[in-house]
Amino acid sequence: MIVNIKLPNNISYDITIDELKELTFDRKVVVVTNPTVSGYHLEYLKNKIKCGNLSIVTIPDGEEYKNMETIDMILNHCFENRLNRKSLLIAFGGGVIGDMTGFCAAIYQRGIDFIQVPTTLLSQVDASVGGKTGVNNKFGKNLIGAFHQPRAVYIDPYFLTTLPPREFSAGIAEIVKMAVTFNKEFFEWIEQNDLTDVENIKVAIKKSVETKAWVVSQDEKENGIRAALNYGHTFGHVVENETNYSKYLHGEAVGIGMIMANEVAKKIGLMSEEDTLRVKNVLEKYDIPTTYKISDVEDFYEHFFLDKKSLDDKIKFILPVGIGDCKITDEVSKTDVIEVLKGF
Amino acid sequence: MIVNIKLPNNISYDITIDELKELTFDRKVVVVTNPTVSGYHLEYLKNKIKCGNLSIVTIPDGEEYKNMETIDMILNHCFENRLNRKSLLIAFGGGVIGDMTGFCAAIYQRGIDFIQVPTTLLSQVDASVGGKTGVNNKFGKNLIGAFHQPRAVYIDPYFLTTLPPREFSAGIAEIVKMAVTFNKEFFEWIEQNDLTDVENIKVAIKKSVETKAWVVSQDEKENGIRAALNYGHTFGHVVENETNYSKYLHGEAVGIGMIMANEVAKKIGLMSEEDTLRVKNVLEKYDIPTTYKISDVEDFYEHFFLDKKSLDDKIKFILPVGIGDCKITDEVSKTDVIEVLKGF
Repeated sequence: MIVNIKLPNNISYDITIDELKELTFDRKVVVVTNPTVSGYHLEYLKNKIKCGNLSIVTIPDGEEYKNMETIDMILNHCFENRLNRKSLLIAFGGGVIGDMTGFCAAIYQRGIDFIQVPTTLLSQVDASVGGKTGVNNKFGKNLIGAFHQPRAVYIDPYFLTTLPPREFSAGIAEIVKMAVTFNKEFFEWIEQNDLTDVENIKVAIKKSVETKAWVVSQDEKENGIRAALNYGHTFGHVVENETNYSKYLHGEAVGIGMIMANEVAKKIGLMSEEDTLRVKNVLEKYDIPTTYKISDVEDFYEHFFLDKKSLDDKIKFILPVGIGDCKITDEVSKTDVIEVLKGF
Repeated sequence: MIVNIKLPNNISYDITIDELKELTFDRKVVVVTNPTVSGYHLEYLKNKIKCGNLSIVTIPDGEEYKNMETIDMILNHCFENRLNRKSLLIAFGGGVIGDMTGFCAAIYQRGIDFIQVPTTLLSQVDASVGGKTGVNNKFGKNLIGAFHQPRAVYIDPYFLTTLPPREFSAGIAEIVKMAVTFNKEFFEWIEQNDLTDVENIKVAIKKSVETKAWVVSQDEKENGIRAALNYGHTFGHVVENETNYSKYLHGEAVGIGMIMANEVAKKIGLMSEEDTLRVKNVLEKYDIPTTYKISDVEDFYEHFFLDKKSLDDKIKFILPVGIGDCKITDEVSKTDVIEVLKGF
C-alpha cells in the first residue's frame, strides 16, 4: 500500500506500508538507530540495503537523549565518514530517532536527504510523516528543530512484532487522535475492529497516514489546520512534564490529554457526554491510561505556558467537535479549564 | 534603491540600499550584535526601531566564536525572553552575525523570521543576501547550517564610515568576485571608478546585490550556478585554514584565492594573461593581498578535501572564462593545479 504526500514547493514523497523491499543506493548512507532496535532488527534492515558505503551510528535509547549532544554525536559520525551533500541518512527507530535524524539531515551542510524507517507504531502512524524534526532542551520539548521532509517513508508492520504491548497501545492513542479530529467513519471502524490483529493494524496505519498526509499537504508549517494534530498534546505535555517524562510514554500522556480536552469540549458544548465516553472506551480497550491525579490545578494550568505553542499569553486548545471534526481555539476561559481540571 | 529577490516557493524580499528608515514591529524583536558594532551603532539602530518589546543579545566578536556554543547563547536569550513563532530576529553586524542569527532563526521553534542589517561591506555586498546560514565546527567552515531566507535586508552605507580600511578592502574583494564571474561591464566600471567614494560604493553595492539576487533566484540551494559565487573560495579557504584564520580576513583570503584560480584558468586556456593582470591590478589598488607563500604544495592540495564542497573525491573549481563569465569544473588535473601552486 502506498500513500503519496504532495506539498507545495514541488516536494512529494511516497509512504509505503508493506514488507520492506530491497533498497539500492549509489551514495553514502548512514543508518541512525538505537541499541534496542538494532538488537532486534538491524540485520533485517542491512539485508535489504544494497549500498557500497553503509555505516551505522547507534545513539542511546530514550527521550532524555533527544538533545543537541546526541545531534553532535550523529553529525560527528557523518563528518568522520565524509558524507557529502548527496549522502543520505536513514532514521531506523521510533519517533525520537526520526526527529533527531531528520534534524541532522536538515542542518548537515545546510540540508541533505533522509528516509524514515519507523519501527514503533507511534512513529509509523504519525511521527515519521510530515517533516517535523527537532530536539528538546531545558526549556521544553522539540523547541529546537526544522521542517525537513523525508524523501520516503517505509513502514514495515513486521517491526511491530517485537514492540512491547505498552508501546503498541501508545501508538493506538495517536491513531485514535487522527480519527477523532478528522475522520468519523474511521473512528467507527476502530470501535468495531480489533487493532491487535495484523491485518487490521495495517488498515489503521494506512488510514492514519492518509489523514496525516492530507493535513500536512494543506499546512506543512503548521500555520493553521496542522495544529489540530496536537489534540491531546497541550494537556499531555503537562502530564509528561509533571511526571518527569518517566511515568508515561508519550502516547499514553496524549491519551490522558485527549480525555482532558474532551472534558473541556463537553463543558463548552462542543462534545456530547456520549461521544466523550466512546473515545474513553476505545482508549481503555487498549489499556491506555485515561485518568490522572492532578495535585495542584493552578500549577497544572501554569504549565501550559511552558509549552512552545503557548509562549504567547494565550493558550491554544484543540478541541473535538463531536467525533470526526475539531476546532482550534484560544478563547476558552481559564475558569472553564480550571473547573474541568478540578475533576481530575 | 531597492533590489527585489524572487525565489521559487513564493519567497520574495526587498534589499534596500539607503539610509535606514524607521522600522515598526508589533511583535517581539531580538537584535543580535557584537560589542564592536554595538559600541558604534546600537543607539542609531535603536532610534530607528519602534517596537514594544525589543531586547539585545551581544555575542563575542570574531570567526572563532562562530560555533554551536554561541548559537546556544542566542537561543537561550530567545527562550528566556519567551519569543514565539511570530517573533523576529535582527542580525546587526557582519557576516558572522548574519550567518549565526539566520541559523538561530532557522532552528528556533522550527523556524522564525529574521532581518539582515549588515554593517560591513562584505556582508552588505554578499553575505546578507541569499539565505545561507550556519556555523563552523572542528571539521571546517559553515559545515552546520540551513538555507533560511531573511524577510528583508537593510543596507545602510552609513555603517561603513566606521569600518577599518582593511575590512573595507576585504569587502571589495567580494565585489570584484561578482564582477569577474558574472558581469564584464561592472568590472570595467570598477576599473574606472574609485570605490572609496561614497556615491560609487553605493553603486557597487547595488550592482553586487543585483548579481547575487539574480544568481540566488535561479539556484537557491546551490545545486548549480550559485556555486560560482565560491570563486576564489576553494583556494581561499585553504589559505585561511593554513594561517589559522588569524592572518587574513575572509575577503583577503578570497582575494588571494581569486589570483590562484585565475592562474589555473590561464594554465588551461580559459583566461588570458592580460585579464589575470587586470583582476590583480584592481585588487592591488585596494591593498588586497595577491601573493601567498605556499610552504608545501602537496599539503595545500590535500587541504582542498577538507572543504565541504570537496568531501567527494573530486575538487570542484570555479574558474573565470575571460572576465564576466565563469565555469564550474571538476576536471582540472592535479598536475595542472600542482604546477600552478608551485608558482606561489
